[in-house]
Amino acid sequence: MSTSNLDAIFHPAAIAIAGVSTRGRENQLGGRGYLDAMMRCGFKGKLYPVNPKGGEVLGLTVYPRVTEIPGPVDYVVSAIPASGALQLMEGCAAKGVKAVHFFTSGFSELGKEDGIQLEREVLSIAREHGIRVVGPNCMGVYCPGSGVSFLSDLCKEKGRVGMICQSGGNAIYVAREAARRGVRFSKVVSYGNASDVNETDLMEYMADDPETGIIMAYIEGVKDGAGFKRALERAASRKPVIVLKVGVTESGARAAASHTGSLAGADRVWDGMIEQVNAVRVDTIEEWIDMAVTFSFFAEPVGRRVALLGLGGGATVLAGDEASKEGLVIPRFSDELLQSTAGLLGSEAGTIINNPMDLSAEAWTVGYYPILKAFSEYDEIDFTIVHLSVGLIARPPEVHTEIWNKLVDDVVRAHTDFGKPVIVVIQMMTFPEHYEWMVEAREKCYMAGIAVYNSIRHASRSCNRLLRYHARAAVRRGTAG
Amino acid sequence: MSTSNLDAIFHPAAIAIAGVSTRGRENQLGGRGYLDAMMRCGFKGKLYPVNPKGGEVLGLTVYPRVTEIPGPVDYVVSAIPASGALQLMEGCAAKGVKAVHFFTSGFSELGKEDGIQLEREVLSIAREHGIRVVGPNCMGVYCPGSGVSFLSDLCKEKGRVGMICQSGGNAIYVAREAARRGVRFSKVVSYGNASDVNETDLMEYMADDPETGIIMAYIEGVKDGAGFKRALERAASRKPVIVLKVGVTESGARAAASHTGSLAGADRVWDGMIEQVNAVRVDTIEEWIDMAVTFSFFAEPVGRRVALLGLGGGATVLAGDEASKEGLVIPRFSDELLQSTAGLLGSEAGTIINNPMDLSAEAWTVGYYPILKAFSEYDEIDFTIVHLSVGLIARPPEVHTEIWNKLVDDVVRAHTDFGKPVIVVIQMMTFPEHYEWMVEAREKCYMAGIAVYNSIRHASRSCNRLLRYHARAAVRRGTAG
Repeated sequence: MSTSNLDAIFHPAAIAIAGVSTRGRENQLGGRGYLDAMMRCGFKGKLYPVNPKGGEVLGLTVYPRVTEIPGPVDYVVSAIPASGALQLMEGCAAKGVKAVHFFTSGFSELGKEDGIQLEREVLSIAREHGIRVVGPNCMGVYCPGSGVSFLSDLCKEKGRVGMICQSGGNAIYVAREAARRGVRFSKVVSYGNASDVNETDLMEYMADDPETGIIMAYIEGVKDGAGFKRALERAASRKPVIVLKVGVTESGARAAASHTGSLAGADRVWDGMIEQVNAVRVDTIEEWIDMAVTFSFFAEPVGRRVALLGLGGGATVLAGDEASKEGLVIPRFSDELLQSTAGLLGSEAGTIINNPMDLSAEAWTVGYYPILKAFSEYDEIDFTIVHLSVGLIARPPEVHTEIWNKLVDDVVRAHTDFGKPVIVVIQMMTFPEHYEWMVEAREKCYMAGIAVYNSIRHASRSCNRLLRYHARAAVRRGTAG
Repeated sequence: MSTSNLDAIFHPAAIAIAGVSTRGRENQLGGRGYLDAMMRCGFKGKLYPVNPKGGEVLGLTVYPRVTEIPGPVDYVVSAIPASGALQLMEGCAAKGVKAVHFFTSGFSELGKEDGIQLEREVLSIAREHGIRVVGPNCMGVYCPGSGVSFLSDLCKEKGRVGMICQSGGNAIYVAREAARRGVRFSKVVSYGNASDVNETDLMEYMADDPETGIIMAYIEGVKDGAGFKRALERAASRKPVIVLKVGVTESGARAAASHTGSLAGADRVWDGMIEQVNAVRVDTIEEWIDMAVTFSFFAEPVGRRVALLGLGGGATVLAGDEASKEGLVIPRFSDELLQSTAGLLGSEAGTIINNPMDLSAEAWTVGYYPILKAFSEYDEIDFTIVHLSVGLIARPPEVHTEIWNKLVDDVVRAHTDFGKPVIVVIQMMTFPEHYEWMVEAREKCYMAGIAVYNSIRHASRSCNRLLRYHARAAVRRGTAG
């Protein structure tokens, strides 16, 4: 089956949503939630809520059945119980629908004969009428460019990251959390049981998709190992592919089998395959987001020699350890650079003039801008990691806010003014207000094109993976050395 | 030098604070900050602010010199510039002061001859007059039982955890953050350059201290390796000691040398020593806090067989992987338990009835209490990890709050009602309000005696370390098997 008709799930002209309650509350999961999501995400085509009871919701007529909708319908979202699935499919076939997404669960993932049989029958109708099926048992599609969405609070701005994520909960979390670090998506698909549209189709689609420049793939299991490997290889030869393979332990695999009916496959086989095609393997959700941030914002690294600049003596010692352990090189600064930096300070007391560097109290007065200027002119480092600790020091809130804003603004200015890349780590929150500060500071950073991380460890690990990726990609292109 | 006179730094009858500005702002680092901190922490002895200008601050008379204070003074906090240190020491000697803490920096840590010489002269006066010196270049002492504190926002409640932390910034962060997870402190000391009072003195003191049941030690370097090893061995034979050794890489060691003038020592030597005495080594600040939480709240594990109960299919697959990778055993449940659990649910659609288990949508109706009851009666598991994801699902806020509170309350009730331990992971925040929910949920949990972690990985790693600690402790006591 060609993947070209996946276009209907990303760019439908008209969407029907089956199972929209007229009494449902805003922002609730289910049919009403999908209706809200499409409207808030700015879907510009026709939207048809469907419910046997009819009526009206959010100013739209509710149709009792898909077949009673007046105009053509490309794409149907089903949020009705599994027991109504076959009847819905018959209606979709009669209506000439191109694709159906089943948010509905209660199919093969339960591991029982009736659910497996029902999924088979849904698929049989789909195949007979050339209808593509997303799911069942998943969140479906988020495509900000067309206004298709599965949640009303997702970012409306489109970007270049495509996400293939079997799990709905993880797709939600990552779509939200990565957005807070500046990642913008071309297409996100949570495809659940993968009865029809599966990881291979989606990988092929994303590989060809001109709107997608970076691919994130969360895989519980694959239906066709050889086919997926071909798709992954093709995709990875064209753009960065970041793979989070889960279900890698016996108990994880057991959960994956119950979650989406997936057969997880041996961990080592995955390791070999991902390495071979120069995709990037990560181990956790956070690392998965980290690499999307890294490929989005820190695209052209020159080398692994880093300057570490931060706040707090202990934090600076830890920063040196963690960046080293993750494979970065932290060169000693020249005496000349050390002297010129020390010359910028009122006093050296309570600072660490070295690499890693800690300005502590002097940061309030000097700021980071002149230091980053000196680093930008110093040939022995390739980039700088600045680490900021929100709310570390007790001060009157207005003074603290002023200092905090100055440091963040200095980093943003320096990144904009000088050629040398800066990446930022924002860590150490204890009080709720610090979390808000962090959210704001992250936004300032990514708006200026700066990659932001939660720890030195994660920042360094991500940079190391990026450098390794580019080195291997250069070897493949025959341009190494 | 005996460590017995360290009592003066934890339980002074009168404290003088040198360098209190009468125009300083509340909660600012420096003399004024120390004065605020002692007053807010409820210090019950005499407090004497000192400043050559005299005057009055917060209703207290400011004395121009320590020698002009009318009554006796046990303990002096110095927040004056390093240039005034010798004169201050002479005054302290004349006044019969027992201990001086130098917040002041600008001594040996700068690595320059004049600073090294100054520190030597301070120490020489101290030795001559039997004065103990804390620091210089550190935050000093927090002892909630006596009301000595270095920051006005630290918890006033005392507890059983003693923290030895060379770094001031890390001491602040951990004192705050660990408190948010229920850890309460007996004594915390940030000792900076360790010119006199050092890690060995403090380890000896904490080992003997009846108020300290658990010791946390953050070490940049030690002055006397053999002495420290003896102190560590003695302490670890009496109570759990959690060691975060930093400066373990070349660049980390370089930062440590500039930070507190420490010689970091070879990482492998530390590994061997810590292993040999059955202390617990951790790699990050977060793991350090995790182990303090673990020893505080999860004291008597029976074994490593765990039930995983959570929210979200993808999160559940990841939970299985991460707990397995960290050395826990996740047994398959018996058919009987699976059937009885399934019987509690309205529908199995969208759930994972297995171990790891995900109730997802059904959690709203069934809650966790009856599930945890079934687990408590099931002999094949030793404890349960419940993982909760704040704000995963879009719902009207009031519904979400209600569900969230029900789940947290169910866990607290189950932990209280049944004999089997439950530990909790709260993760996945994207919006600032979720951070506040997390803070509240953590508090509910630790108030009920439940250990709370930020990820399955961290919870599992901590449990594994705890089990290993107790197994080795049993071997030492000759009670293994």
